[in-house]
Amino acid sequence: MAKLRRRDFLGKAAIVTAGAGAVAACGGPASAPEGGPAVVTKPRLNWRLASSFPRGLDTIFGGAEVFAERVESLSEGRFRIRAYPAGELVPGLGVLDAVQQGTVELGHTASYYYTGKNPAVAFDTAMPFGLNTRQQNAWLYHGGGLELMREVFADFNIVNFPAGNTGGQMGGWFRREVSTLDELRGLKMRIPGLGAEVLSRLGVTVQTIPGGEIYPALERGVVDAAEWVGPYDDEKLGFQRVAKNYYYPGWWEPGPTLSVYVNRTAWDGLPAEYQSIVQSAAAEANVDMISRYDAVNPGALKRLVDGGVTLRPFSDEIMTASRDAAFELMNENAAADAGYRKIFESWDEVRRSSFRWFSTAEQAYARFSFGGG
Amino acid sequence: MAKLRRRDFLGKAAIVTAGAGAVAACGGPASAPEGGPAVVTKPRLNWRLASSFPRGLDTIFGGAEVFAERVESLSEGRFRIRAYPAGELVPGLGVLDAVQQGTVELGHTASYYYTGKNPAVAFDTAMPFGLNTRQQNAWLYHGGGLELMREVFADFNIVNFPAGNTGGQMGGWFRREVSTLDELRGLKMRIPGLGAEVLSRLGVTVQTIPGGEIYPALERGVVDAAEWVGPYDDEKLGFQRVAKNYYYPGWWEPGPTLSVYVNRTAWDGLPAEYQSIVQSAAAEANVDMISRYDAVNPGALKRLVDGGVTLRPFSDEIMTASRDAAFELMNENAAADAGYRKIFESWDEVRRSSFRWFSTAEQAYARFSFGGG
Repeated sequence: MAKLRRRDFLGKAAIVTAGAGAVAACGGPASAPEGGPAVVTKPRLNWRLASSFPRGLDTIFGGAEVFAERVESLSEGRFRIRAYPAGELVPGLGVLDAVQQGTVELGHTASYYYTGKNPAVAFDTAMPFGLNTRQQNAWLYHGGGLELMREVFADFNIVNFPAGNTGGQMGGWFRREVSTLDELRGLKMRIPGLGAEVLSRLGVTVQTIPGGEIYPALERGVVDAAEWVGPYDDEKLGFQRVAKNYYYPGWWEPGPTLSVYVNRTAWDGLPAEYQSIVQSAAAEANVDMISRYDAVNPGALKRLVDGGVTLRPFSDEIMTASRDAAFELMNENAAADAGYRKIFESWDEVRRSSFRWFSTAEQAYARFSFGGG
Repeated sequence: MAKLRRRDFLGKAAIVTAGAGAVAACGGPASAPEGGPAVVTKPRLNWRLASSFPRGLDTIFGGAEVFAERVESLSEGRFRIRAYPAGELVPGLGVLDAVQQGTVELGHTASYYYTGKNPAVAFDTAMPFGLNTRQQNAWLYHGGGLELMREVFADFNIVNFPAGNTGGQMGGWFRREVSTLDELRGLKMRIPGLGAEVLSRLGVTVQTIPGGEIYPALERGVVDAAEWVGPYDDEKLGFQRVAKNYYYPGWWEPGPTLSVYVNRTAWDGLPAEYQSIVQSAAAEANVDMISRYDAVNPGALKRLVDGGVTLRPFSDEIMTASRDAAFELMNENAAADAGYRKIFESWDEVRRSSFRWFSTAEQAYARFSFGGG
């Protein structure tokens, strides 16, 4: 794991060695307590976390709740975090601002919402035709990625942690079949972020519509297509009732990371043990969220297909043109900004070598065992 | 995450509310400490962990070290764990016995080493043609798998936690090309566990040889083929110098989990906070190990290929016959033992539905982006 900067809490709190036996029955066989139990002073904290997501997205919003529960449990209730859904404290897309300004100590969000502030923050979440879930974790935890992203977020007075992943997303709901670039051109699609930037280069009329308003827009034909997340989340919004073609993959989000943001001033004031707790709780929330998605998506997919939805892969023609446009965009950004370029080069090296490795054992196993593709 | 049984530490340790201000500078903006800092009594523990792996396997043995470091950090040094490599305290395959008997409080091992005690323990690690890394985590954390495995390990006085994963392994090193079942028959191969049971049904003469003795056996032709882990670990043992055909995938281990074992008596004596620390440290070690493997395998693969190794996928003929033999074996075990059957049925339902889900977005993205397979 990435090394975290820690303050020496020992200098701030009194640790007194009390007489042995004050805590009975602790330890098991062969345990060797040295000097008896420790008496330590720990601050009580009540922190607030602003999530970018509604409570109804129980897997994603649930990631913040898992994080909060783990922090509370690891501190035995002394360090409490309450997670607020989007809109209760601050708007869903106002999380970075709120953490930066100290309105809240913590946020749980997707960094690519904030590319307007710095395009490089997208690498913290997902890039079109980029890293899948495992590759993203490999880059962040052991490929230098987290250190690079920390440098970016330092400008926002934020310390960031990976804390959730949705897995590769679906490509979305299309009212009609779309097989060629010609058919793609002129299509009106609800898609935000980098995926939208790429698709607009291919002639798609892209629109950003909040989650709750996508269904009526798709039903009334205001848009011809809309992407959201994947089977479990999409099913709740009811898209299957108004569009029958469910395309994959969502190449713009092959393994998006959700992030916990900590206000740096608040972070610097934490004792070392609580900093450590934040790190581990975020890591646990990270593996927990993808495991939860992988547990609930299969059943949702089955219900959708049983209900008459047709699964369709994007054609290689559309995939290839999209990939070309995506790397054209990234290369333009890299040429324009040295900070972006530095991150892009680290990320791209990991991407190339990791794709090569995943093309062997993982991909051969998946092709044979899962089929499809 | 799975709910853990916890003891109420509050009943065992005195928590005194001290005057406010005893700990200065804690908390950040908008923090609202209630009642000032807490003074708590915590036991000091020094526990021993026996690993099944040598120190040289730095990714796998390193998982135990990451686990130990996180426990120490989360407890601010009060709960210390020392990880011992295989053979220092107990033999590598003696970890379950040592934890069961309380010789050590903790183990870090692969449960499928102990199928001689109960064939069902293999589900805790990996099954031939079974779950990949993400699917295994989904089953364990959110598919009922961990609860089922806990029931099995209760018979051994052990509480088990997922604490590492290697990712899909390679199929191993072959002195000659092997494309058909005819060519496979009569081959002498170093392979342990369930993979060996399956391959012996296809006429392979299987041998179990410890890691350090595989290289000379392969060099001298005592065996025609040998599997170990994947590029990063295999490279260290030097197989590339004596066998040039590197096959994939290792269908017998598509995403093996390493486990932390805790002696139940020791576990029951832990305060709730320390139990919580063990859970989070194991989860962090779980995501950390696979991330580390995914970060180091690509470079090792490149070095091996640059050095003249030829990568070869197993033929569909061999894959299909192996899968048939694997499920024949599992079905026999399920028919013979109700406990095994209960776990097999849970696992197989997750496997089927999860394979279907992974055949869409994940597989289409992988096929297009990684190629190969």
